[in-house]
Amino acid sequence: MNTFGYYFRSTTFGESHGRALGVVVDGCPPGISFSEADVQPYLDRRRPGISDLSTPRREADRVEILSGIFEGQTTGTPVAMVVSNTDARSGDYDELRDRFRPGHADLVYQQKYGIRDFRGGGRSSGRETVARVMAGALAARLLAGCGIAVSSRIVSVHGNTDPGWFEDEIRAAKEAGNSVGGVVEVRATGCPPGIGDPVFGKLDAALAAAMMSIGSVKGVEIGDGLAVAGRLGSENNDAIGPDGYLTNHAGGIVGGISTGEDIIVRIAVKPTPSIAVPQATIDSAGRPVVLSVAGRHDPCIVPRILVVAECMAALVLADAFCAQSVNRWFAGRGESREKED
Amino acid sequence: MNTFGYYFRSTTFGESHGRALGVVVDGCPPGISFSEADVQPYLDRRRPGISDLSTPRREADRVEILSGIFEGQTTGTPVAMVVSNTDARSGDYDELRDRFRPGHADLVYQQKYGIRDFRGGGRSSGRETVARVMAGALAARLLAGCGIAVSSRIVSVHGNTDPGWFEDEIRAAKEAGNSVGGVVEVRATGCPPGIGDPVFGKLDAALAAAMMSIGSVKGVEIGDGLAVAGRLGSENNDAIGPDGYLTNHAGGIVGGISTGEDIIVRIAVKPTPSIAVPQATIDSAGRPVVLSVAGRHDPCIVPRILVVAECMAALVLADAFCAQSVNRWFAGRGESREKED
Amino acid sequence: MNTFGYYFRSTTFGESHGRALGVVVDGCPPGISFSEADVQPYLDRRRPGISDLSTPRREADRVEILSGIFEGQTTGTPVAMVVSNTDARSGDYDELRDRFRPGHADLVYQQKYGIRDFRGGGRSSGRETVARVMAGALAARLLAGCGIAVSSRIVSVHGNTDPGWFEDEIRAAKEAGNSVGGVVEVRATGCPPGIGDPVFGKLDAALAAAMMSIGSVKGVEIGDGLAVAGRLGSENNDAIGPDGYLTNHAGGIVGGISTGEDIIVRIAVKPTPSIAVPQATIDSAGRPVVLSVAGRHDPCIVPRILVVAECMAALVLADAFCAQSVNRWFAGRGESREKED
Amino acid sequence: MNTFGYYFRSTTFGESHGRALGVVVDGCPPGISFSEADVQPYLDRRRPGISDLSTPRREADRVEILSGIFEGQTTGTPVAMVVSNTDARSGDYDELRDRFRPGHADLVYQQKYGIRDFRGGGRSSGRETVARVMAGALAARLLAGCGIAVSSRIVSVHGNTDPGWFEDEIRAAKEAGNSVGGVVEVRATGCPPGIGDPVFGKLDAALAAAMMSIGSVKGVEIGDGLAVAGRLGSENNDAIGPDGYLTNHAGGIVGGISTGEDIIVRIAVKPTPSIAVPQATIDSAGRPVVLSVAGRHDPCIVPRILVVAECMAALVLADAFCAQSVNRWFAGRGESREKED
Repeated sequence: MNTFGYYFRSTTFGESHGRALGVVVDGCPPGISFSEADVQPYLDRRRPGISDLSTPRREADRVEILSGIFEGQTTGTPVAMVVSNTDARSGDYDELRDRFRPGHADLVYQQKYGIRDFRGGGRSSGRETVARVMAGALAARLLAGCGIAVSSRIVSVHGNTDPGWFEDEIRAAKEAGNSVGGVVEVRATGCPPGIGDPVFGKLDAALAAAMMSIGSVKGVEIGDGLAVAGRLGSENNDAIGPDGYLTNHAGGIVGGISTGEDIIVRIAVKPTPSIAVPQATIDSAGRPVVLSVAGRHDPCIVPRILVVAECMAALVLADAFCAQSVNRWFAGRGESREKED
Repeated sequence: MNTFGYYFRSTTFGESHGRALGVVVDGCPPGISFSEADVQPYLDRRRPGISDLSTPRREADRVEILSGIFEGQTTGTPVAMVVSNTDARSGDYDELRDRFRPGHADLVYQQKYGIRDFRGGGRSSGRETVARVMAGALAARLLAGCGIAVSSRIVSVHGNTDPGWFEDEIRAAKEAGNSVGGVVEVRATGCPPGIGDPVFGKLDAALAAAMMSIGSVKGVEIGDGLAVAGRLGSENNDAIGPDGYLTNHAGGIVGGISTGEDIIVRIAVKPTPSIAVPQATIDSAGRPVVLSVAGRHDPCIVPRILVVAECMAALVLADAFCAQSVNRWFAGRGESREKED
Repeated sequence: MNTFGYYFRSTTFGESHGRALGVVVDGCPPGISFSEADVQPYLDRRRPGISDLSTPRREADRVEILSGIFEGQTTGTPVAMVVSNTDARSGDYDELRDRFRPGHADLVYQQKYGIRDFRGGGRSSGRETVARVMAGALAARLLAGCGIAVSSRIVSVHGNTDPGWFEDEIRAAKEAGNSVGGVVEVRATGCPPGIGDPVFGKLDAALAAAMMSIGSVKGVEIGDGLAVAGRLGSENNDAIGPDGYLTNHAGGIVGGISTGEDIIVRIAVKPTPSIAVPQATIDSAGRPVVLSVAGRHDPCIVPRILVVAECMAALVLADAFCAQSVNRWFAGRGESREKED
Repeated sequence: MNTFGYYFRSTTFGESHGRALGVVVDGCPPGISFSEADVQPYLDRRRPGISDLSTPRREADRVEILSGIFEGQTTGTPVAMVVSNTDARSGDYDELRDRFRPGHADLVYQQKYGIRDFRGGGRSSGRETVARVMAGALAARLLAGCGIAVSSRIVSVHGNTDPGWFEDEIRAAKEAGNSVGGVVEVRATGCPPGIGDPVFGKLDAALAAAMMSIGSVKGVEIGDGLAVAGRLGSENNDAIGPDGYLTNHAGGIVGGISTGEDIIVRIAVKPTPSIAVPQATIDSAGRPVVLSVAGRHDPCIVPRILVVAECMAALVLADAFCAQSVNRWFAGRGESREKED
């Protein structure tokens, strides 16, 4: 399944070293101002090669909108967006044809499909998130028009919570031919109450799926997250006052539905699996080999994952917002009728 | 959205104090032995009133299968299962008509729908999980036929990780008119490699959504979970040997696809929000009131959530297993053709 | 797939001789007045045994609403409705265990699933439409609140277009142990322009699927239907005037979207396949046998299919209407903002 | 909704005069040989400008595959295919900015979305079918590997059923600045029994939706179609013999499931609405105007619709075939187990 969302639906495609990556967004309401200039800043934030701490692969990552926009506005028809791959040095990956990198999806893809595009990880590459970011940029535009903003920040890198030291942690890992993980927080402000569904379509369930669907995320917390497991009910409940909730342990979501408070999600990101440190693995004949991964890799994916996580949150919220607009339209009809009477 | 799964689809319905709760499972392959006797043990594990530490509401929770089974086997048509509500004392909830309980979905439902069934929490009640358990029992039967078993255990209650003290933690909270949270672990054994999809349909993304969709779950971890954020790549990667992975930090899932190792998920469960301890809230006119929740409630939902979490994991795995069976069938055709040649 | 609709979704279950037939309607907006009294007249119109020209099977077909309604209104949660089977004389069908009736799904079910509930045709029985009618009754309530009404009429029976002779055609077939087909027209009035989607979600595509999904329908026409194939463009185009279209050859749908004119659909219904006239077939061992179908059957399904076809049209329109309400809500926001400025 | 299919899913995008038209096919099993050379012949069959009886717009319609193929085979990941627009003379359509063409979707798009890409009909143009044809080419490859072939033929043009006169009918219409409709038949051979679902997922329901979703189709018949309405059951039932069905009135589908006989679908195609003959319509201010449509148009869409109808049938069958492969895989497991015992 390469489609995300039910009302506001994004279908993505593309491999790390294929011709292009792209997304088709279906279900976006008409009349939203949108152009390539709205997407590019998002792509630039996740672009490789802009710091000596990210992979040196150089991709312009220029978005091209193929459909769905007319005279600067969405028309209600599918918005297709594409980024071409240019700096795809597949030769770098030739030795990976027959060796399965630990921590990567190489082996499981082979087991699942019986065939795999091994060049740069193919579809399982982090480069796949280019498509998510393009879709997320459109979702963010829709949300902005409704007063909702999504932002993110690094909480920790390699266990270090001091922002002044994040870079040093990454540099140290890089110099050791190793990698480090970290924690990221995403926050949505301005979301009205009533967004999200009960039962399986809970807003936090959708956010959890969205975040865990990003490669290398291994944990998701809403609001105070794991900490709630150690609390008493009287400590954890958010009391309600005439002007809103008095605390926000719940992270803006109760019963799967937004409360109107800030929505807060945290994710745990594993260290990049591609490292120069030698690791035990097997080749395609099942024989043990030792692998030191060359190629161009990030020693820490945390800085570049920020915009991806924001975009996934924006996709979830845009979808839930469109869903709730059905209820609102019918409720509005009722109100209109009452006024007429 | 009250449907879960794409290939193996469960659609649930029912309110805490309505006539019945139920589920329709569509997409279950034919030929699986199944009867009410396969469901009842699951329902009995989540049934209220069986311990002095759970709510004293007494429900027989007898399953009735309405369709889809013929001569003891699934037929490939929808399997509908229903449990009637019998001990629904809605009168207990009259005072909740106009007061919003902190930590509950009362207020957000009202904001979302403009109407709510306030009796016992209506659709937002934990009683809704009766339907999930019935569906999960069928999923577990399907999986058992494929060699996959799902189990669960309590990891901690109120921060206490000693199983000998779990009951005391709960009893102490109950006596104080309070409640406690905890952590639960679900494990699936016997899952072959290759189950799960890349990108949005990742097995861990589906598990995260499944778990977070259970009321009161605020965090989800796969494998080592949050701990990976503090590690080096060389510490976290699972090396691969000729006989399988040498460690299982990944919790049985890499790139969203099962590795063949045990699948491990942990969830953080918040303390039950219904407590006798007085809490600040508002009434339906927006005026501040103090609420002490009466009625019949669990001081800790952790013991009863075990079977629900297992069942949600079973639904995810059954769905992903059916999805992969398409690839397998086509691959099998290829192999058959090769043999013929 | 036993789910119909995308926004307004009906999931049905049940076999002819099982315990019950039912439907879960998900995605219905809150605040719609609805009770069992709204459903029963629809069920009564399709009920067997009310005329000597329909099957003598006697079923009360009393609907029971299990969920989703509170104080007489929809709450936005799933509405489950059930009808119990009472007069299921499965013994009548014992000889069908091993014989495949021509024109029925007996043989293909066996080939598809490897198992089949042969009692009364199981899931392939026309009795399955009980669930569609219950869902359609709710859709019709939603539409009525929006000014849309759906009706139907018999166009012909056995080629005879004179309403005064329909009954004679059916009686003649019955007396000969035979059966006859006919044509039915469904019409929706009051539908505003703009309902339906381009490309795959066209309103006429959805109507065609809806109608063809009713057992024994073999042809669907929109507006002038097949006749358009013999025309010139100048004869077939509906000219547009300031007060609307000057003709309605298109049957109220252009480009898959409603025009505001009456929506008109016609369906061709085949003669009931269960006949006493001896027919060649095979048994489960593949041996040729001659079969004269006993049991209780309709000599003509056309009169009872009217309400089913209406209900399927109502489901399509309710779904498309909910879809368009997203666009409307966003458009309304624009208008609100403009007024504020 | 711009997605078609549930297991084998095609999501299309693009406008007549936008940058490109394209499709993303998700859910295609891995290991199917496929390249641009498999698509181009299909595109060439629907390409404009290849006869003096079709629109003189000249488009190379060269397919470019952007993803999902590796070393000449599908990999199980999404296959994206794109055709760029080159000969888009949008200036031709400037007068249509403010005038609604009768028989076209201009007016309903404006009513639905409040905005429309009027250049060449935008998304409602027949050019949208380029994307369907690319997806259909992949579906046809999948089916060919399973022994299924889909073909089509013209049954009639302007009521004339003599193939020798089809061209004259079209030429006469063209010379009169008019247009004509016709009837097309699609046939699938080699389809095994058991494909298709009961109730809403019936194979004929899916085919009806597929065909009616093609612009200008106003009627769909399965097998003998409308003719069955005038028959007796004894005339219409297909008797069954040890070697298969003795007749095929049903068009290869009973109860929504394939019988193993040829699957036969016929569609009625309306005359192209763009004609030079003057027609009454309104402008965007609602004032009556007379319109004679210039631009480049087909006097009869029937010859070019053949490949589109084939491709839609192929998409339906590929989807249903993948669905049934789940049942087959599970059934195969049963057989494997029996052999082991």
